[in-house]
Amino acid sequence: MTRDISYLLQELTLEEKAGLCSGLNFWHTKPVERLGIPSIMVTDGPHGLRKQREGSDNLGIFDSVPATCFPSAAGLATSWNRELVKQVGVALGEECQAEDVAILLGPGANIKRSPLCGRNFEYFSEDPFLSSELAANHIEGVQSQGVGTSLKHFAANNQEHRRMSTNVLVDERTLREIYLASFEGAVKKSQPWTVMCSYNQVNGDFAAENKYLLTDILKEEWGHTGFVVSDWGAVNERADGLAAGLELEMPSSNGEGDRKIIDAVENGSLPMEALDRAVERLLKIIFMAVDHKKENAAYDQESHHQLARKVAAESMVLLKNDEQILPLKMEGKIALIGEFAKKSRYQGGGSSHVNPTKLDSVYEEMEKLAGNKASLNYSQGYQLDSDDINHALIGEAKVAAQNADVAILFVGLPDRYESEGYDRTHLNIPANHQALIEAVASVQENVIVVLSNGSPVEMPWISQVKAVLEGYLGGQAFGGAVADLLFGEVNPSGKLAETFPEQLGHNPSFLNFPGEGDQVEYKEGIFVGYRYYDTKKIQPLFPFGYGLSYTTFDYTDIMVDKKDFADTETVNVHITVKNTGSRAGKEIVQVYVKDLESTAFRPEKELKGFEKVELQPGEEKTVVVKLDKRSFAYYDVARKDWHVESGEFEILAGKSSEEIVLSEKVVVHCTSPKFTKVVTRNTIVGDIIDDPVHGPVIQAALQEMNKNSGLMEAMQEGQSEMMIAMMKYMPLRALVNFNEHFTEEMLQEILQKLNKTELVNN
Amino acid sequence: MTRDISYLLQELTLEEKAGLCSGLNFWHTKPVERLGIPSIMVTDGPHGLRKQREGSDNLGIFDSVPATCFPSAAGLATSWNRELVKQVGVALGEECQAEDVAILLGPGANIKRSPLCGRNFEYFSEDPFLSSELAANHIEGVQSQGVGTSLKHFAANNQEHRRMSTNVLVDERTLREIYLASFEGAVKKSQPWTVMCSYNQVNGDFAAENKYLLTDILKEEWGHTGFVVSDWGAVNERADGLAAGLELEMPSSNGEGDRKIIDAVENGSLPMEALDRAVERLLKIIFMAVDHKKENAAYDQESHHQLARKVAAESMVLLKNDEQILPLKMEGKIALIGEFAKKSRYQGGGSSHVNPTKLDSVYEEMEKLAGNKASLNYSQGYQLDSDDINHALIGEAKVAAQNADVAILFVGLPDRYESEGYDRTHLNIPANHQALIEAVASVQENVIVVLSNGSPVEMPWISQVKAVLEGYLGGQAFGGAVADLLFGEVNPSGKLAETFPEQLGHNPSFLNFPGEGDQVEYKEGIFVGYRYYDTKKIQPLFPFGYGLSYTTFDYTDIMVDKKDFADTETVNVHITVKNTGSRAGKEIVQVYVKDLESTAFRPEKELKGFEKVELQPGEEKTVVVKLDKRSFAYYDVARKDWHVESGEFEILAGKSSEEIVLSEKVVVHCTSPKFTKVVTRNTIVGDIIDDPVHGPVIQAALQEMNKNSGLMEAMQEGQSEMMIAMMKYMPLRALVNFNEHFTEEMLQEILQKLNKTELVNN
Repeated sequence: MTRDISYLLQELTLEEKAGLCSGLNFWHTKPVERLGIPSIMVTDGPHGLRKQREGSDNLGIFDSVPATCFPSAAGLATSWNRELVKQVGVALGEECQAEDVAILLGPGANIKRSPLCGRNFEYFSEDPFLSSELAANHIEGVQSQGVGTSLKHFAANNQEHRRMSTNVLVDERTLREIYLASFEGAVKKSQPWTVMCSYNQVNGDFAAENKYLLTDILKEEWGHTGFVVSDWGAVNERADGLAAGLELEMPSSNGEGDRKIIDAVENGSLPMEALDRAVERLLKIIFMAVDHKKENAAYDQESHHQLARKVAAESMVLLKNDEQILPLKMEGKIALIGEFAKKSRYQGGGSSHVNPTKLDSVYEEMEKLAGNKASLNYSQGYQLDSDDINHALIGEAKVAAQNADVAILFVGLPDRYESEGYDRTHLNIPANHQALIEAVASVQENVIVVLSNGSPVEMPWISQVKAVLEGYLGGQAFGGAVADLLFGEVNPSGKLAETFPEQLGHNPSFLNFPGEGDQVEYKEGIFVGYRYYDTKKIQPLFPFGYGLSYTTFDYTDIMVDKKDFADTETVNVHITVKNTGSRAGKEIVQVYVKDLESTAFRPEKELKGFEKVELQPGEEKTVVVKLDKRSFAYYDVARKDWHVESGEFEILAGKSSEEIVLSEKVVVHCTSPKFTKVVTRNTIVGDIIDDPVHGPVIQAALQEMNKNSGLMEAMQEGQSEMMIAMMKYMPLRALVNFNEHFTEEMLQEILQKLNKTELVNN
Repeated sequence: MTRDISYLLQELTLEEKAGLCSGLNFWHTKPVERLGIPSIMVTDGPHGLRKQREGSDNLGIFDSVPATCFPSAAGLATSWNRELVKQVGVALGEECQAEDVAILLGPGANIKRSPLCGRNFEYFSEDPFLSSELAANHIEGVQSQGVGTSLKHFAANNQEHRRMSTNVLVDERTLREIYLASFEGAVKKSQPWTVMCSYNQVNGDFAAENKYLLTDILKEEWGHTGFVVSDWGAVNERADGLAAGLELEMPSSNGEGDRKIIDAVENGSLPMEALDRAVERLLKIIFMAVDHKKENAAYDQESHHQLARKVAAESMVLLKNDEQILPLKMEGKIALIGEFAKKSRYQGGGSSHVNPTKLDSVYEEMEKLAGNKASLNYSQGYQLDSDDINHALIGEAKVAAQNADVAILFVGLPDRYESEGYDRTHLNIPANHQALIEAVASVQENVIVVLSNGSPVEMPWISQVKAVLEGYLGGQAFGGAVADLLFGEVNPSGKLAETFPEQLGHNPSFLNFPGEGDQVEYKEGIFVGYRYYDTKKIQPLFPFGYGLSYTTFDYTDIMVDKKDFADTETVNVHITVKNTGSRAGKEIVQVYVKDLESTAFRPEKELKGFEKVELQPGEEKTVVVKLDKRSFAYYDVARKDWHVESGEFEILAGKSSEEIVLSEKVVVHCTSPKFTKVVTRNTIVGDIIDDPVHGPVIQAALQEMNKNSGLMEAMQEGQSEMMIAMMKYMPLRALVNFNEHFTEEMLQEILQKLNKTELVNN
């Protein structure tokens, strides 16, 4: 095979070039055998391979070759552990090599705008910084094995409802700071081989033909060097898509896409250079895949299962632990209640659905750990396939709970509640799960709830139970991991990567989700997740960044290596953390930045760094978090750039977004080019009166012409706040009304004079 | 004087016509003496006359002729009493006649978007229905005396911050349903002689030159027959304003405005017909004023003061009354604490500031009522002109409280806290008022707080006191009214016309108030006030429509006179209310409408009717509220009209927006013309598959071409919700990707077939 792409571009016919721009079938690119261009295979991810078996139906959702099912991203994100996410990526890469998969479709970096989004379990976080860091490490892990990734779904694909037609109206600042930032960091840090465009429209253009997203931002601003692949069926007009920067249409359009590209080139509406550029990007990645193919690759299913167990135990969050009821002692009578105890819900539905290599049950894994010391008793509690309350099962569960020392309830969301393809409409767990909790809590005071769900639920019952372990969708080793955590074999160290609202209505997108018809407007703007709860002071059920441990940590010191610096500099924040409990544990140290004064709306604070640190009892370590311009900046739409407003910022070190324990003030200076504004008849007095250049001009003019109006005198004497405010907000043109000595001619003269010099507005 | 306007238009020169379109000076229109066209005087309102004395400064804020100061609109609105508001209007009209004022500038119908708006005290409500009803009655009252009104500030003038330059970005539906609706009802019901345009821009055009607002909507849609006057200094480009429908510029622009109009007519950019139409509207009102002038009119200051007292007592809200501490018995020792007890805060600052004919003090009025039975003791508590805590005064207050049986604290917002011209930045009362409450509450368990303020405050201290009377800004008889209520001479009957949030951050506009630079975007949309708290389930401190009485009321029955009707019909709701307590009292019965299912976002419920009813102990009355199309409709931007979606609605009868006590379901049928939609390649399957006409076409096509895809089968077998959802949301064009038997050609054929018939979307 030649790698001379220039040569290949000369040799390829128009038909062959167009052909390369769409799939051969559902999962393969088209080969051009006469030129030695191979076909490569792509496969759904991201937390395991969903490689379709030969001969199965096209979508093949429920019939793929066995692969390790790791925790889905929602859980994985609660680890806040970059290295662990990378290890998962490495394992996924190994499995891809073994299965001859060139590109694994993932990770997903969409932001959790609403907890209702049916596909949230596949995404990391409501915070773009955390999400992009984890996505970057996932990509690095997979790609380290010579296997490509596809960072998806680009962009603003934050709901399943009408996902193939809805038009997302999102303002530029919000798009940049929230929805794109989650992709930006991952692209810049880890160069995913491919990026997958989403189904929806963004501000009027389908993502699949959105030049602003695919070319201007992704390729040109961020420097992405791979290719863009469409989500399956996302292409609207193929030639427009190609011109906009979409190189690969998937799956095959049975020649329709090829024909449209050929027609467009032939009728001159699509330049051949655009097609060549696309083919060049495609060939580069196809050859990269081929060159990194490891022959006879294999992986050890058991060791991957063990990794999945380790990962799962770090991908759960201990939300409540009154009276330190957890970890459980391996003794006495333990009632395991709820069908989930035997039939775990460990992954979500849709394209990411993996056929696992093996599958733990919680009951069996707990039995293995403690069966010889404690007496475990299982009780079904509810029927998984129904929401109906089964009084007989509840009755049995009550008896089991009554006869035990402690009852562990396994509840959450059954498969049908959340999936790719549709969104939830409420945050409740099924009525029969809730009834079970209440019934058991009425007869047993030691109740522990283990939740299986891909996205937050409301917990009106929480005061009735002593402990809650949020298990998320923990993958095939969910059962073992839960056993490890409950018995304290592993110390919980996950913290929420999303806010759990007390009620659905409190979520910032609630009034605009999922849109009207084919339009959804992101009216909450940048106030997504904790940015909203924090700023509006709405108390969530559990805040972003929150999670308990079986040990305790003290933050003893914060130090910044500079306190006054330019926005082009970086600053290191040193935070010392000590394990003050009696068990080894891991703590996630979160660094937020707060702008103390701004002319732009800004959230109360934003996550700009984090480190996870493992500490033995009594041990102390100092973590260092580096902050740069972006840590202090907002996206300034007028400047079309990130901008730091000079002034004081607070650097906050927190155990969660709510529990800030240390802080330090710094002053950052803007180095952006100065921004000039023309003074017009509608410029208000207050905007120029204090300006070093313009102020004296306007003051002199006002005094000169003030003889009888009384306005300026009122202002100067500080006669009342009202008079001062009235003058401050008055446009220059209104002085003609309020001062008989001020004529339109004089106004024009003054404007000319003022605009000779530049008004600085920084 | 001739009334032949056609004749006058022929006789008037261009210069004279242009001259009529701006003021002679600050308060008068220009006369044309040679044709017998007089000058008329306008004067600030709305809750009293602020008629400038001869020879004072132009603004003359603090030096006007004495006039009765009635409660400002914020308080008046809590009466929910149409007749009472009309009586105030009549009294204001009498005073105008006595003072030779032709037009009183008011009422204000701006919506309380944020409690921070410095001018909220001049506005009625956060709800457009309540606001427009009260504004209409104010107008009717004033105009019944042959005096004109000026409904202001049109439109979307909901903050003082940068009010003369800010651009309000508000979507069409929100503008119509919330901000304009408040004016619409008043214009249609009561034809104010004039409407005053506001300072701000609305969606890019200054209100003063906003043709959409001033001509398309106000004059053409709503049929306003009077003229539009600019807020003082609101004119930007005079000729553009005239073309847009602004007839009168105020104050004088010293000839600049005249010149611009003349130039525009002469250079052809402004048709003479436009100027003639403006002059015609101006002359009509000028002559109306002259013809209604009552010679030697006078009014009785004392009887107006008594009216002001009666009105004020109905314009306050009893918010809390634990252990029925109120009404106070006229006995024992009563400590009156706080400088407000002697120096009432009874009105707000700015153009509405009235020089009262007399002024009650609470202390004196309470002394008059109970001085011979109880022992009243005054203690200053704080210094009004400072926020600083005066420990000596607090110490005295504690002693006074300790020595009394009950302590009444007079606190709230001093003048400097709220005024025309600037907004508040927080909802706190001054630190010294708050400290006083806490200090007194620490030594006296019987604490009653009386608040003076024009807009909500936070009450973190509320659990420490037994009663709270929200006195608002009660006008010159504030003192007497408070005395009447505290001693039970009058039974409180006011209910809040706005939500009191627990915290400022909970307010819907919080994240977007007061905007960035000269732009403020109403991102909360239609979810203003209780529409937001209700829908988002955010618990306010006190909800909209809430207020206590010294008696109790039961709602015993609700009846609608039809249950299934067309949107062109009206329906009467009958609600029976009984006074179940032992005192006479008045109850405000509120009727809300809830749309049970809608394709548009709708608030949880909306106020669509109310009645205030007076009941003797044990008495029962049935109130009737009429609902019409608008009661069920939302503004449909696509239709450019109000639209009722056929279906079930709930009619709710409540004591407040939170306390709904009776409800009834009805079915309303849409009679609007059917709305057709073209089927395109991006129409999704789910939107047409159930359509009676299109469904069979698309189903047949799908089945015909489904041979191998498995998709339709999956859907038909109900194999999973995911597969069904995926198909439902799939655009027709994507079938080409997912079905090898479905070609682009076939898609085009089907689209042609589908578009031969109309798609009904009602």
